[in-house]
Amino acid sequence: MSGDALHELLAALPEDAVVVDPATVENHRRDRAELCPAGSPLALVRPRTTEQVQTVMRWATRHRVSVVPQGARTGLSGGANAVDGCLLLSLARMDAIIEVDPLDQVAVVQPGVVNADLSRAALESGLFYPPDPSSWEESTIGGNIATNAGGLCCVKYGVTGDFVRGLEVVLADGEVIRTGRRTVKGVAGYELTKLLVGSEGTLGVITQATLSLRPAPEEALTMVALFDAVPPALEASVQIMSSGVRPSLLEFLDGPSIAAIQAYRDMGLSESAQAMLLMQSDRGPLAVDDVAAMGELCERLGAVEVAVASDREESELLLAARRMINPAVEKVGASFVDDVAVPRARLIDLLDGIARIAADHDVQIMCPGHIGDVNMHPHVVFDRGDDAAAARAADAFGAIMQLALELGGTITGEHGVGTLKRPWLEQELGTVGLRLQQRVKATFDPLGILNPGKVV
Amino acid sequence: MSGDALHELLAALPEDAVVVDPATVENHRRDRAELCPAGSPLALVRPRTTEQVQTVMRWATRHRVSVVPQGARTGLSGGANAVDGCLLLSLARMDAIIEVDPLDQVAVVQPGVVNADLSRAALESGLFYPPDPSSWEESTIGGNIATNAGGLCCVKYGVTGDFVRGLEVVLADGEVIRTGRRTVKGVAGYELTKLLVGSEGTLGVITQATLSLRPAPEEALTMVALFDAVPPALEASVQIMSSGVRPSLLEFLDGPSIAAIQAYRDMGLSESAQAMLLMQSDRGPLAVDDVAAMGELCERLGAVEVAVASDREESELLLAARRMINPAVEKVGASFVDDVAVPRARLIDLLDGIARIAADHDVQIMCPGHIGDVNMHPHVVFDRGDDAAAARAADAFGAIMQLALELGGTITGEHGVGTLKRPWLEQELGTVGLRLQQRVKATFDPLGILNPGKVV
Repeated sequence: MSGDALHELLAALPEDAVVVDPATVENHRRDRAELCPAGSPLALVRPRTTEQVQTVMRWATRHRVSVVPQGARTGLSGGANAVDGCLLLSLARMDAIIEVDPLDQVAVVQPGVVNADLSRAALESGLFYPPDPSSWEESTIGGNIATNAGGLCCVKYGVTGDFVRGLEVVLADGEVIRTGRRTVKGVAGYELTKLLVGSEGTLGVITQATLSLRPAPEEALTMVALFDAVPPALEASVQIMSSGVRPSLLEFLDGPSIAAIQAYRDMGLSESAQAMLLMQSDRGPLAVDDVAAMGELCERLGAVEVAVASDREESELLLAARRMINPAVEKVGASFVDDVAVPRARLIDLLDGIARIAADHDVQIMCPGHIGDVNMHPHVVFDRGDDAAAARAADAFGAIMQLALELGGTITGEHGVGTLKRPWLEQELGTVGLRLQQRVKATFDPLGILNPGKVV
Repeated sequence: MSGDALHELLAALPEDAVVVDPATVENHRRDRAELCPAGSPLALVRPRTTEQVQTVMRWATRHRVSVVPQGARTGLSGGANAVDGCLLLSLARMDAIIEVDPLDQVAVVQPGVVNADLSRAALESGLFYPPDPSSWEESTIGGNIATNAGGLCCVKYGVTGDFVRGLEVVLADGEVIRTGRRTVKGVAGYELTKLLVGSEGTLGVITQATLSLRPAPEEALTMVALFDAVPPALEASVQIMSSGVRPSLLEFLDGPSIAAIQAYRDMGLSESAQAMLLMQSDRGPLAVDDVAAMGELCERLGAVEVAVASDREESELLLAARRMINPAVEKVGASFVDDVAVPRARLIDLLDGIARIAADHDVQIMCPGHIGDVNMHPHVVFDRGDDAAAARAADAFGAIMQLALELGGTITGEHGVGTLKRPWLEQELGTVGLRLQQRVKATFDPLGILNPGKVV
């Protein structure tokens, strides 16, 4: 593409909206999937309005330039990584919370709003925006929607997509549509809103979202159970979830994860424990009963220690320890992070299989996970700079996805496909299914300029 | 199309799968939207397996024959009505509950399973399938999914689509795909499952569904509040929903609806009441507090009577009265049933506007509704056989949709578009949005043989 075309874009947008400075552009080339490829972008645009996004997409259509939409680039699958010659389209400056409505219990926001900012704004109206990916202090609502992000809350409240009622979207050709609705219910036409959720910027550019909020729950009671082996902890999670208790959080750390966190920072976790369940109930006066029931169940199954957080501070400390897993692993080495989910009956087979894969590939695998939803995040860890170890780790990373598929599960519970998991997608969707998805992509983006090479 | 083609179909399917008997075919021509047009079908097929559905679709593709999928034909928008020369494809015989899994809390079912049968099967495992359209004793899961059916439970538990994890679908060309997953979470590829939900048989034929179940809730406490005017009842519903109480049911009947039900059968309702709220809470030991809070709120706003059902029998009687609205209206006259939803702040404007529309068009409008979700069902009633009144009623029916759109709402909360609401769809979706939806339709069904003329 010619320099003239770029000048045309510069002329059509406010001066500070287009960045060609190599250092800034370089800083925006990739998300947190360190090991995914990233191309060389042409420039970075940072629009402030829907109209400016339309200008960008009309220009891109005219000049057949690829556009890679970006939020905070905290994704873990390479979905926001540059492709060669692309325009990086950062929505970070469209960061207005347009409205929080306590009657309809909705928020209307621009895509660049940071998740935690929305959560706090909702709370000021006595409302609750549940989706809480571990990146919530940085990641944006637009990115959360584009990846259908999960988090710790999912076990009770669901994922990002469950809270998206309607979208404003700029299409590949620069036209703008509104999908969905503001009302609780609505079935007028096809459900394009949910189709766009999780589409990783390949079908359109989200410029506004109408999100469901809920009444703020009562403060949660937090508890922890430690086990000297993995199987009883897995069994406890299965029995809790089928007992009718509805925990608002149910997380798992295996022994190596606990040790890595303790090595990173002393969080008071027992370094000898081989498994830990972290649980919450937020059912107000009934939370005491829930916690008692979960505790008894863990003890019956052989937990060596069961403790309820005595106050909010202790509770937040436990959650902080869980959220520390990513930096803690980073300190140990480089890692490939899996994101598999399997049917509950196959959880033990999954963990057994992961241990076998670690031994077979001579790699260390730490296995934290959202165990209430059976969505596990095995981290295949290896020494930075050791190419042979990296190759073994890559093989193990793939073997874990293969295992999840064999167990009737999915290659990705919440991180998305990006470029990282594309090689396994056809096996999950089937050839006919993948082909149909590619046709859907072509329907929205006939020129293939929206985030090409991602997802399908 | 030639008789040879039909012979080809007869030869490819078991003897009893193809029905050409005119009386039986005639019985399957339409759903319950009495006033929607229905064409003359060629024949009716009743497959028992996915393979037979594939045979039907391959045949239809080869001979360019339109196919209209049908469940129990309890729909209210003409979505299952025949078009001229079509094959009616009844899924009613594919009625197996393949699995109810208490560990994963899922059910795997064929599309012809009746909603109430699934609900009962789930309950036997201590589980709960919430979606409960008023047709639940007759309507099938396939039809519920195809229309994204709502019901009384939605205010707390959501609509059918919220419970669909995965589908097996036969495409227009006879290929079969599996969408979604069995696991709680999953983001591998585009969310075709939710796109197919509510698509009224225009994108594919659902042959199997994997559905989420929940732990069975405790028995609900039911209460009723009567008002001598409509506005305080509306206000009470708004305040209940924004108070943080989460009723498991919140229904509204206006004076004419109450009178029609009493005239149909003596349910002990006060004929002088101008508005009634029916409420439930199923939060176990906390339900007493919820009911007390809702009752106090209604009294403070001027309810003339507030009563809590003393036992299950009384509670079921109250629900039965609410569910009786359709036959009760039918006894009064023919009717067009609207299905509008608006933002909560516009509820009073909606009811005021409906009263004005009734006066302007010289028609009677009864207005029951799922008021907790602000999804109202104004019935525009008129004398059977009075063409002038029917014409006025049709105008009023349209004026109500127009009003809902002006108030920022939707033309259909849960009944679907079918043929009944197609004239208003473009206004809701916008020209660009509708065009995109038509392209999505063409992507799934390039020959346009799947339920043509419906939805988009």
